[in-house]
Amino acid sequence: MMPSQVKGYAAHSSESDLVPYSFERRDLRADDVEIEILYCGICHTDIHHVRGDWGPEEYPMVPGHEIIGRVLKVGEGVTKFIVGQSVGVGCLVDSCRECGSCEHHQEQYCDEFVPTYGSRDRHDGTLTFGGYSDKIVVSERFVLSIPENLNLAGAAPLLCAGITMYSPLKRWNISAGKKVAVIGLGGLGHMGIKLAKAMGAEVTLFSRSKGKEEDAYRLGADHVVISSSESQMLSVKSSFDLIIDTVPYNHDVNPYLKTLAPDGALVLVGFFGALEPTVQTAALIARGKTLTGSLIGGLEETQQMLDFCGEHNVTADIEMLDIKDINLAYERLLKSDVKYRFVVDMNSIK
Amino acid sequence: MMPSQVKGYAAHSSESDLVPYSFERRDLRADDVEIEILYCGICHTDIHHVRGDWGPEEYPMVPGHEIIGRVLKVGEGVTKFIVGQSVGVGCLVDSCRECGSCEHHQEQYCDEFVPTYGSRDRHDGTLTFGGYSDKIVVSERFVLSIPENLNLAGAAPLLCAGITMYSPLKRWNISAGKKVAVIGLGGLGHMGIKLAKAMGAEVTLFSRSKGKEEDAYRLGADHVVISSSESQMLSVKSSFDLIIDTVPYNHDVNPYLKTLAPDGALVLVGFFGALEPTVQTAALIARGKTLTGSLIGGLEETQQMLDFCGEHNVTADIEMLDIKDINLAYERLLKSDVKYRFVVDMNSIK
Repeated sequence: MMPSQVKGYAAHSSESDLVPYSFERRDLRADDVEIEILYCGICHTDIHHVRGDWGPEEYPMVPGHEIIGRVLKVGEGVTKFIVGQSVGVGCLVDSCRECGSCEHHQEQYCDEFVPTYGSRDRHDGTLTFGGYSDKIVVSERFVLSIPENLNLAGAAPLLCAGITMYSPLKRWNISAGKKVAVIGLGGLGHMGIKLAKAMGAEVTLFSRSKGKEEDAYRLGADHVVISSSESQMLSVKSSFDLIIDTVPYNHDVNPYLKTLAPDGALVLVGFFGALEPTVQTAALIARGKTLTGSLIGGLEETQQMLDFCGEHNVTADIEMLDIKDINLAYERLLKSDVKYRFVVDMNSIK
Repeated sequence: MMPSQVKGYAAHSSESDLVPYSFERRDLRADDVEIEILYCGICHTDIHHVRGDWGPEEYPMVPGHEIIGRVLKVGEGVTKFIVGQSVGVGCLVDSCRECGSCEHHQEQYCDEFVPTYGSRDRHDGTLTFGGYSDKIVVSERFVLSIPENLNLAGAAPLLCAGITMYSPLKRWNISAGKKVAVIGLGGLGHMGIKLAKAMGAEVTLFSRSKGKEEDAYRLGADHVVISSSESQMLSVKSSFDLIIDTVPYNHDVNPYLKTLAPDGALVLVGFFGALEPTVQTAALIARGKTLTGSLIGGLEETQQMLDFCGEHNVTADIEMLDIKDINLAYERLLKSDVKYRFVVDMNSIK
């Protein structure tokens, strides 16, 4: 076998637009799966990495970690996948496979996990390139099976936005009878509403603006609370078993802590940036409340999430675009002008 | 039956010493247990309440919520206790008994729970008086059974310090193979070391000073980390499944968050006062770490803790004193001059 020639879109610096970029994918190792990429979701994180918002990055950068495709070839040792199967790849393509986190199927907390793009392969040291491309080669441990009944384009955002919301819902044992709130209605928030509802929970959206109400109800929310309204916030005091906070910048978490029931948890999934919030610890102690965070999910749990979405026919609400419009999509995403996730039709790269 | 005449010690204002004070305990209701108090532990909280540190208080105040005694009488409906039995009373003597927290045996998170002293009885509105007295009358739901093999004086601090540490250890499933750290070696911290060790955990004490090392090892700690030493703190990076933070004033929790393993939890049990810490939320998100709090425990769990202490013969290290020396004990406690809990021999009040 020979390395595959791949067409992609890359940024060559933190200030440049994404442009067409050709590169090679490695020849298959025994445990590798080669995937023809059909769809790739656009995550806000892609923009942060391209622009170097979180520190120095390596370029050229081919972003994309919400990848859906079909198996083109498998290495000789591959046991989980066959040619033609629908598969997905999410935010990581390798990890040390030996530490406590890896042993406990929490590869996303491994100190040496390898992000799908902008990182270095553990074996040959080459730069990893993501899903804004027509093919990818990934070790089978980091490849997911996609239920055949799901709309494949709508399934792409499950690989990041979906698992990011599913993991805390499972960790905190959400089921019928539980009260869940989601802060913010974007790519993450809209998946949170759908998943919590599919688990049987009573679901509330916290939103700053009234404009989101109609959509929230359509997506499955039972209630919408306008977070700028003191009376509305007071009306949900001590209510929620779980709140998932998707807001990706520094903000005051204390008003939301007040709306947790005793023993309830507020889970942060959006990075705050350099500023950090103060926390009213008396609220944590006096009612056993929890402030915690969560990062995507492990591979086993991601597969469970996909199977759950297959059973409940849950996918993202997406807007499809051609790869040539990627830079425009970034501009719109920065203005939150998308309902609720952009997905690139990778056929458009051919 | 008639109300009982009781001898106690009370503070008559936030600025006055505790002085002898006679009062009545109520005639027994059907579900009440009358207890001859043998021992009462002194909790730092007693001083905060006497001095009004946490807001306005009602006086006269008879503190004390680490109460050990023997049953003198039982009401006609009492089923759990018999005359002569060793019993305990902790931080609460009633709750609404109907809310979600009460239903889930978390009476300490009930909005209407009735503290053992300085509060109001739910039925007759009288002021509640605590354990610095020779008798108390409490509904049987809020009375605990004390294993007969335990040293009764050493068992008194289990009712507050013991359950405060036991509850987070159980909530976070501590058992053999888990790594637990305790911040601060006082009344709470020394119980934390003993309980975590009895559960089979590998136990570390975080201390600011080297002076605590010998005692920590004697109490069962496997390691001592001097928290002011950057190199020692670095040596335990990403180590602990659970840290219980007993420090009762505002401090920086972020260095301790760094020492949590992925998915680990830092549990606050000491109130910070008016100032509140900033929290590096990126640490919570990137490794799924948790910052939470815990307040004593429910009645069912308190009984489990006492039974566990009976099986493992765990009691507090105490210094016994006569009630006439209570004001001196408060002065010494404010200087942390006690190893590790004062217990009043209530025989001394007669």
